[in-house]
Amino acid sequence: MIAVSEAVERIAAAFRTLPSETVDIANATGRVLSVDAVARATQPPDGMSSMDGYAVRAADAGKGATLKVIGTSPAGHPYGGSVNAGEAVRIFTGGVVPEGADSIVIQEDATAAGSSVTINVAARKGRHIRVAGLDFKAGEIIVSRGHRLTARDLSLLAAADLARVPVSRKPRVAFAATGDELSRPGEQRGPGGIVASSGYGLSALIGQWGGEPVDLGILPDTMDAVASIAAKAKGADLIVTIGGASVGDHDLVQKALGPQGFTLDFWKIAMRPGKPLIFGRLGATPLLGLPGNPVSTLVCAILFLRPAIATMLGDVAPRPVLNATLATDLAENDTRQDYIRARLSYRDGEPWVEPFSVQDSSMQSTFARADALVVRAPHAPAAKAGTRVEIIPLD
Amino acid sequence: MIAVSEAVERIAAAFRTLPSETVDIANATGRVLSVDAVARATQPPDGMSSMDGYAVRAADAGKGATLKVIGTSPAGHPYGGSVNAGEAVRIFTGGVVPEGADSIVIQEDATAAGSSVTINVAARKGRHIRVAGLDFKAGEIIVSRGHRLTARDLSLLAAADLARVPVSRKPRVAFAATGDELSRPGEQRGPGGIVASSGYGLSALIGQWGGEPVDLGILPDTMDAVASIAAKAKGADLIVTIGGASVGDHDLVQKALGPQGFTLDFWKIAMRPGKPLIFGRLGATPLLGLPGNPVSTLVCAILFLRPAIATMLGDVAPRPVLNATLATDLAENDTRQDYIRARLSYRDGEPWVEPFSVQDSSMQSTFARADALVVRAPHAPAAKAGTRVEIIPLD
Repeated sequence: MIAVSEAVERIAAAFRTLPSETVDIANATGRVLSVDAVARATQPPDGMSSMDGYAVRAADAGKGATLKVIGTSPAGHPYGGSVNAGEAVRIFTGGVVPEGADSIVIQEDATAAGSSVTINVAARKGRHIRVAGLDFKAGEIIVSRGHRLTARDLSLLAAADLARVPVSRKPRVAFAATGDELSRPGEQRGPGGIVASSGYGLSALIGQWGGEPVDLGILPDTMDAVASIAAKAKGADLIVTIGGASVGDHDLVQKALGPQGFTLDFWKIAMRPGKPLIFGRLGATPLLGLPGNPVSTLVCAILFLRPAIATMLGDVAPRPVLNATLATDLAENDTRQDYIRARLSYRDGEPWVEPFSVQDSSMQSTFARADALVVRAPHAPAAKAGTRVEIIPLD
Repeated sequence: MIAVSEAVERIAAAFRTLPSETVDIANATGRVLSVDAVARATQPPDGMSSMDGYAVRAADAGKGATLKVIGTSPAGHPYGGSVNAGEAVRIFTGGVVPEGADSIVIQEDATAAGSSVTINVAARKGRHIRVAGLDFKAGEIIVSRGHRLTARDLSLLAAADLARVPVSRKPRVAFAATGDELSRPGEQRGPGGIVASSGYGLSALIGQWGGEPVDLGILPDTMDAVASIAAKAKGADLIVTIGGASVGDHDLVQKALGPQGFTLDFWKIAMRPGKPLIFGRLGATPLLGLPGNPVSTLVCAILFLRPAIATMLGDVAPRPVLNATLATDLAENDTRQDYIRARLSYRDGEPWVEPFSVQDSSMQSTFARADALVVRAPHAPAAKAGTRVEIIPLD
């Protein structure tokens, strides 16, 4: 058995950033930039008014001054001339500040009469003007390589005149569940049969983390069926098996895939849920064998598959460590690192976690109701309610 | 001007939960259940072993006892007979516990020899057996109506033999940007022209929040173009305009849509960024007019559009209030509720926020780098670094 931290390191070392592809920004949320995004436009392109009012020369727009309105500058229709002494230009939010003007008097502070305007509050140089390049300038890096694009980034990229961006290709993660007891929901089940369930959650998580899930289906507990993964997963960047990672006579993954070129890196991690986790390579392709109990499957996916996908994407953001306050006591821990299912809630803005009393790794109903995992180090001493503990939020 | 809280209430009151549709669970993450999901299966369906070992009668499996192995019970292949005095059945993880047996002795605690097994550690009644229905029973509600489905929920629904579930239809949110100064990224821009950018972020957010974005494009600043929204948005559950919500002569949304049946509920909210926000109805369809400065557009979408979508989805989860510690001082606030762009980081597991020094609502580069908004109530007093403040995380 190896420690969780060692497993994470060994898995991370097995992956590299995938090649890039170019996508429209409209489809780029959640994708990871593969080169720095450099602005093609300056924003704003010219000095622009941030208010509706009058563009003036501050020097001759004191309180009580009357100026001649010589033109108009709405957004998208700059005034072509320049503002000279005693003159003003009617301007609107987003309108280009005409040459000569150095201040905006907002319309609430001015009285228009025919083709002139009287200033009621003295202009101040630079007031209500957004200077060219205030937001960014052409040639500047606006989003860095290795950043996972948010909705806000898409708007920023658009503003910088970038319609398409290079991002890492999505890792193809092929997964198969093994077990004679398994069937699809809605299908007839045999005696002792159960529904293969964790593939649904796993597939959704792979997608959320930026991968492309490829469902290879349910395989019976035969050498041939399990061996068929090698052919079925061609083209995958990572193969994931669910179940069959334990020690019994019916745990076939290692046995059946050996002749297909499987080499083991490690097997068994000192953690709960999820001790029997396989990691190795099938030919050149990394293979992660997740334990079959559904809670173990998904917890191990969060701990080991998620960083593997992040590495393939070139996502450089560190995952922050988060704390919360224990709402109930916890007993001391044994030798395995524990991931305790808990409810997360906020009291006066501060996070509290309440572990569920029963933690069996087969209990999906509890896992679905959980909002967080409480991380307990091996041999962690008993912890009283009120203690701050490390958590991993689940959504 | 009305308060943010009043605006949220008035907007929420204008929406109802949409009708439901049935979807495959494979496509159901992020969807909101429209009826309680009731399990069609019991899990586990029978008493099942959680380990590899021997199913025995605890009463006759004391330390040193030798039992006759009468059969095998791997997962999916139950042993048909029953275990009588002096007998054991070889069993594997997920195998059905045969009739008569009431305990599992793990294989590490037993010595097999031919067709018998010697018990090295006394059996304990119920040990390593997951009783039928431990996770859930057929007929139980496993996920409640109004819950937004997570990846874990999909696994739970599958385990309960639910292949399809009824969820609220996705709200169709039609949006259009207005302004003669606007063009698409990659297109030629005129003098004083800028790229229409916030639609990209808005579209991504609508999708993330569970809606179906419908992009009506960029409209020039003419009465006819803006009036055309009425026809273009047919079938939408909510119409969103970007820009044109201010007070200048060139702000057309209210003027142009009046003859199309627009009725105003309110206009202008005491907040920053984003004062000029329109809410009303175009015929029977709610219309939200977001301010045109990109940061204002997206902040107002987070505050007002997100809850509107949640209401249409029937999503009943309350949004928790979260706190973080200020990393720098903040000055006292004026009369408007302020949403300050800030970086969120974790020090020893605790959240800290550092507001950006410049907060102009045109600055998308700052907004993209922000991780949170710091919420400042009207007239909030100056706050020193170290103070706990309310935040809204951005991703």
